[in-house]
Parts: sequence; structure tokens; C-alpha cells
Amino acid sequence: MHIITLTTDFGSKDHSVGSLKGAIYSRLPEARIVDISHQVTPFHVQEAAYIINNAYKDFPKGSIHLIGVDAEATATKPHILFRLDGHYFVTTNNGLLALIQGNKEPELCLELALPNSPKGSFPERDVFVPVVCHLAQGGKPELLGRPFQDLLDSRDFEPQLLDDGKGLRGHVIYIDHYGNLVTNIQKSDFEARRQGRSFKINAKTYSLSEFFESYSDILNSQKEGEPGKGGDLLALFNSSGYLELALYKSDMASVGGAASLLGIHYRDPITITFD
Amino acid sequence: MHIITLTTDFGSKDHSVGSLKGAIYSRLPEARIVDISHQVTPFHVQEAAYIINNAYKDFPKGSIHLIGVDAEATATKPHILFRLDGHYFVTTNNGLLALIQGNKEPELCLELALPNSPKGSFPERDVFVPVVCHLAQGGKPELLGRPFQDLLDSRDFEPQLLDDGKGLRGHVIYIDHYGNLVTNIQKSDFEARRQGRSFKINAKTYSLSEFFESYSDILNSQKEGEPGKGGDLLALFNSSGYLELALYKSDMASVGGAASLLGIHYRDPITITFD
Amino acid sequence: MHIITLTTDFGSKDHSVGSLKGAIYSRLPEARIVDISHQVTPFHVQEAAYIINNAYKDFPKGSIHLIGVDAEATATKPHILFRLDGHYFVTTNNGLLALIQGNKEPELCLELALPNSPKGSFPERDVFVPVVCHLAQGGKPELLGRPFQDLLDSRDFEPQLLDDGKGLRGHVIYIDHYGNLVTNIQKSDFEARRQGRSFKINAKTYSLSEFFESYSDILNSQKEGEPGKGGDLLALFNSSGYLELALYKSDMASVGGAASLLGIHYRDPITITFD
Repeated sequence: MHIITLTTDFGSKDHSVGSLKGAIYSRLPEARIVDISHQVTPFHVQEAAYIINNAYKDFPKGSIHLIGVDAEATATKPHILFRLDGHYFVTTNNGLLALIQGNKEPELCLELALPNSPKGSFPERDVFVPVVCHLAQGGKPELLGRPFQDLLDSRDFEPQLLDDGKGLRGHVIYIDHYGNLVTNIQKSDFEARRQGRSFKINAKTYSLSEFFESYSDILNSQKEGEPGKGGDLLALFNSSGYLELALYKSDMASVGGAASLLGIHYRDPITITFD
Repeated sequence: MHIITLTTDFGSKDHSVGSLKGAIYSRLPEARIVDISHQVTPFHVQEAAYIINNAYKDFPKGSIHLIGVDAEATATKPHILFRLDGHYFVTTNNGLLALIQGNKEPELCLELALPNSPKGSFPERDVFVPVVCHLAQGGKPELLGRPFQDLLDSRDFEPQLLDDGKGLRGHVIYIDHYGNLVTNIQKSDFEARRQGRSFKINAKTYSLSEFFESYSDILNSQKEGEPGKGGDLLALFNSSGYLELALYKSDMASVGGAASLLGIHYRDPITITFD
Repeated sequence: MHIITLTTDFGSKDHSVGSLKGAIYSRLPEARIVDISHQVTPFHVQEAAYIINNAYKDFPKGSIHLIGVDAEATATKPHILFRLDGHYFVTTNNGLLALIQGNKEPELCLELALPNSPKGSFPERDVFVPVVCHLAQGGKPELLGRPFQDLLDSRDFEPQLLDDGKGLRGHVIYIDHYGNLVTNIQKSDFEARRQGRSFKINAKTYSLSEFFESYSDILNSQKEGEPGKGGDLLALFNSSGYLELALYKSDMASVGGAASLLGIHYRDPITITFD
């Protein structure tokens, strides 16, 4: 039985997540369901893409990812089944999949077309559940719809080269639970552009010139014997490979995090300059 | 093995939900546990009833629903086992069950009376867990207590007819994660009263005269070619059959929702007038 | 298959919890995973210890508890495997285990030393997951590292005797979802010191001289026929055995709780005096 994961903007108070799981278990008593997140900002497909993109790679191939964010179908946004890297994604043509896909070719992309599929305001339960249950049991995806090619592309910013390769500009694509600023600059991009030169990371009035391997590595950069203290800004490529600016031991509810210290928001630019 | 669902006001930080699950697995290693919500407003039995009422119908018959909201027993509020529609509910006689029951007759209603049942401040673990584990394995419910008939009725408002059938007044019974206003007016009530007449839904200074099938249907009601924008008030019967006022693509943390736009709160009236 | 529990400060929005579960299922498709809490205050090992300490005892012996709070290893804080009461704890030598251990002797304490264990910023996934999966299948713990004895002790306050036994001073170690104040005074300590004398519990300007068995017991202490109302301060030993000051039917988001009524915070003192 393949795993079914759930990523939605339902929040955790309403009955919606419970209804979704109940509907799955009603069809498939032995289903294996894993929550990824139900706290996506409402209708925020970029955020949902960031979360699912980082999580799906840790799941076994064959897993089926139900994504319930801005999920209602309209004339121009049909429901979609998509396979990438051996994983299935069930969602809507709202731009989300292009963000997950990146430059990779999907192994399958279908517009869902089930007989008697109900319209209404809860497509995650009424349309997606029968689809994910079919797939979880090993059913053929081809039975679920017809080939589809017009994926909506909502990628609105990619890292840009500055001044003939003298720098690179990225943007903040996610602010995590600790207030860390995650950018769209990936380690591989950085290394390809850097070509061995020294570098400076610039974020508003702050500037950094080294990367750490882990957050606590900043302790080693301090004087010996000095106890590690929170509050130090650092840069690292996080476990998903993205350039991230972080505060060691941050807490948004008390001491703050990189986002509040720097006054930097979602979509703000971060630049790297090479010497 | 029947499914056990959990609905509480425990929140998700404390150890309580973990303790509850640990206690279930200790008795029943093969238990199948599904969270419905742990974010019920503390002691809010009406809210708990709304959530469980909408969720339970999506679960398989035979599921056992543990409800831990205002759960301590007192002299006038014993612990209760209740069966409706083939589902079991384990909770306290605090008014919650009458809200779930509506006009239906329960198939079973017992006051729990287990030998050596401990008193104390964690009845969900100490009293309800043995009960739900007994039922999940197919144990006879009759062994768990004695017949009980005095369910506390906490229904304090029902939709009312206005002026000899010229209208209907309901109330807001829930505000969901998106700020949508859910009323206690059901589609069947509406149609029975409407008798084919045209209608107007009135909420403070706002007035609406059509229902949509889904939130995004509002896009079709706009001029062709015009891109859908957030912020439009609409009415629909939601996936649970209740009249709901919603904003398309609302987000309470940023742009707001119907509740904040209209300045309408829990228990406020919504009226429908017929012409 | 032994149960794996998760206690982290990841929050519930980011991909981290999903990644952790995906990595476990990828190694161990039949894993049984239970969330205890992902809402620990970031880096707050005392809070994590309080939560896991109250929850683990309800799980079956042999359960494996992964604790991802301040989890990065440093030169002085290696990753640790610890067994107590037949339960496994996988975490970091950051002071957390001494708080769980109390005065008990661990049955096993190892510094984790896996071949090719990756460094990096996500040790919960990259280091702890292989360990918990090994143990969940019944693998020998001795294969995972070498004996370790230098557990960091972060216990910074214990209840103190006042004036030759005329009283006892404890501190608030946790404020729960309802705003209840949990102290580090345990029932057994209280009884041992009290020696049958009458007592007074003092918290700022408030004073109480009785304990209840459950929150709603306060209703019985009120005049007969008088309806129970929220807002009454009471003391009880909670289901974990700690002295707790509570408001009956409190709600931090509306009417407030004991913490807001008394203006008492984490680490503030509570004293008991004996007559």
C-alpha cells in the first residue's frame, strides 16, 4: 500500500482534515496517511510548492501527494495528476506543479476526468480522495484522465546574474518556523557562478562572507572558551540545498529571528557579489 | 479494528494528546487513531459539536469518536456512550450530544459505569481510553454502563420563521479557518421555506441574492476576461449543507475574511427574506 | 514493531515533520509513528523535557522517543541514546536527559557513533532516523555507539525547604494550554514535608488552603444550587503528580487563565507554608 501524504491550507481546527482522512479510510481501510502540513498560508501556491518540494524527496517512491491549496477547478484550471521522480502529485493547475517540476520533465501529466465527479466546494474530498485511493492500491493512473500539457507556470522570479557575472541576485522564497530566511539560490548555482572567487552575501545592511555547515558551527567561529550565545547571524545551505540566512537559536515569539532582525520579508532580494 | 478518532481542546503543544495516544497503544497495539481536531476553543461544546458533526459522517460506520471537551464528570454530568448512525461517541453529558443528535433517535445511550474507574483531572485517558479500546476490538457496548435518557440539551438557538413565513432567521454557529461565516440554516430548511420564491440574504449592511456551488464560481459571475480577484463576498451551501457567507480567497492573517469584512461574530444573526 | 514518538520544536507549518516521517517510512515501511509535540518553544530543553516526561510513561515499554530540540551535536554535546524505564530516548547531550532522568539510573547511555554519519543542519533526519529505525526493528542498541557518562545536568532549580521545614518553595516549570501554572512540587514531596500539618499555598497575593481532585471539584465547594462559573482559582495535583494552580474553565484567548489572572510567569516562585 503506497503512502498518501496531505498538504493543505485547511488549518488544524476545522473538521476538514478529519473529513479528508475519514473519506480515505472509508474507501481504503488499510490506507497509510501522513500529514505534511495543514498550515500553508491560505491559497499560497508558492508556499505549498516550497513545502511539498522539500518533503516529498524523503518519502518512498510511489508515494501519492494530495495537495489541497487553491484546489477548486475552474474552466482554465482543471484538476491534475502529475508524476515526477516516481512520486504522484494530485492537485489543480494553479501554478504549483511548475514550481515543483523545475527543469525536470514529468513522467506523466493528466487532466483528471472521472465519471460523475462532483462539483462543489470540497474537491479535496470529493475529487482527490477517489484518485489517491485508486493509486494507493496500485491502480493504473491512465484510467484517471487524459493527457494534459498546459501546466500553468507561476514561477515569477528566478535568481539573476548581475553585471556580467560579478554577482547573483536571489529572493526570499520562504520564512521558516525559526524566522530563518530561505532564498531561491541553490548551492549548485552558487558554485557554478562563483568559480572559486571569494564572495559576500548582502542582505540590507548586513554582509556575510562565509558559509557554515550547521547552525551551531557558529560556535566554533567564536573565541575558544566563550560560551555560544543566541543571536548571531549566519549563512548556510540548508538541508534542502537553499541559501539560508539564520540566527543561531532564534525564536520568533521571543528574541526574534533573522527575518525580524534584518527586517526582511517574503520576496525581498538577497545578493551575492564575487571578487 | 475499528477506527478511533480524537476531538479535544488540548491544543497541540502539551503532552496531553501524546499521553492519550500512548495510553491507547498500550492497551491496543494495533489501534488505528485519527486526529479530528485538538484546537477546539477550551470548554466550547457547541464548537466541538460542529466539528465532530461534520467530520464523523466521512468515517466508516463503526468508528469510535472520543470527544475530550469539558469532559470531567460531575454529579449532574456523567460520562456517556452514545451510538448514532452506526457511530460511537464517548463523551460527557455536557450538551454536546444533543447538538450532534439533532432530531435523530440514538441507537444506544449509556451512562458509563466501569468498575474501579478513577476520578481525577484526565478522564479522557483514565476513563475514555478503556472504553474506546473495548469498542475498537468489537467488545459489547452494553457491558460499559447502564441505559441513560437525560441528555442535556444545550441547543440554544434554532433557525426561526419570520412574519408568517416571509423570512428565516439563523445565526452564525462557526467561523472557519478562512474567516467564512457558517450559519445554522440548512439547505433543506431553506428550500422548504422558500417555496420557489426569490430571496435575499441579509448580513448587516450586505445583501446577496444568489447561491454559488463552489467558492470559485464567483469568477463566472464576473465579466468575461476579467481575472478573478479575492475579496468578493458570496453565499453558498457548504460541503456540510449549511448556509455560509464567504470571501473568495480570504486569509484572516492578511487580507481578512467574511467575518472581519462584515464585522460579524459567533452567534450573530443572518436573515433571509422571501419575496 | 516498536512505536517511534516524535517531540520537536519544528512547528507544524514547515516541511520538517513531513521529511522526518518520510525518512522513517523510507527505511521502515511498517513503522508506527506517533507525534507527541512539535510546538516546543524553539531550543527550550526544559520545556521539551517536561512534555516528554509526562507523555512517555503512557506509551508501551520499548517505545523509542526521538527528541529534536537543540539537536545539533557540538564538540561538547554529542548525540546520545539513553534507556530509562524500558524506554529509549534519542537526543543530544543538551541537558534534556538529566531532567527526564531525575534520580533514576539509566539502563543504558551511549554516545552515538554511526559510520558515515553526516554532519549538517538536520540531524533529526540524518542521524536520529537510522538510529530509531534500527531500534524499532529490535536491533541491538550496543551497535549504535559507545558508553557515555557525562550527561549535562541542566536542572537549575529544585523545590527548596524554607525555615527549618516551615515551608517549601517551588517554581513554575510549565504553563499549559489553558494557562494553568504547573510547579515542580510533587505530591510525594508535599506529603513528606507536610507531616499532617495544615498548609497554605501562596502565589503573589493569592492564597489557597485546599487541594481538589479534579478541576470541576470546585463546583462542589460552592453553595448548593449555585451554578458553576468559570474563573475560580484552585489548586490540585495534576495527572502527572505536580502541584498546579488552575482556573476552572479558563481560556487564554478570551477570559484568560491562572497565568494571566495571577500575573505569574515561567520560573516564578510558588511557596507552601505549614502551620
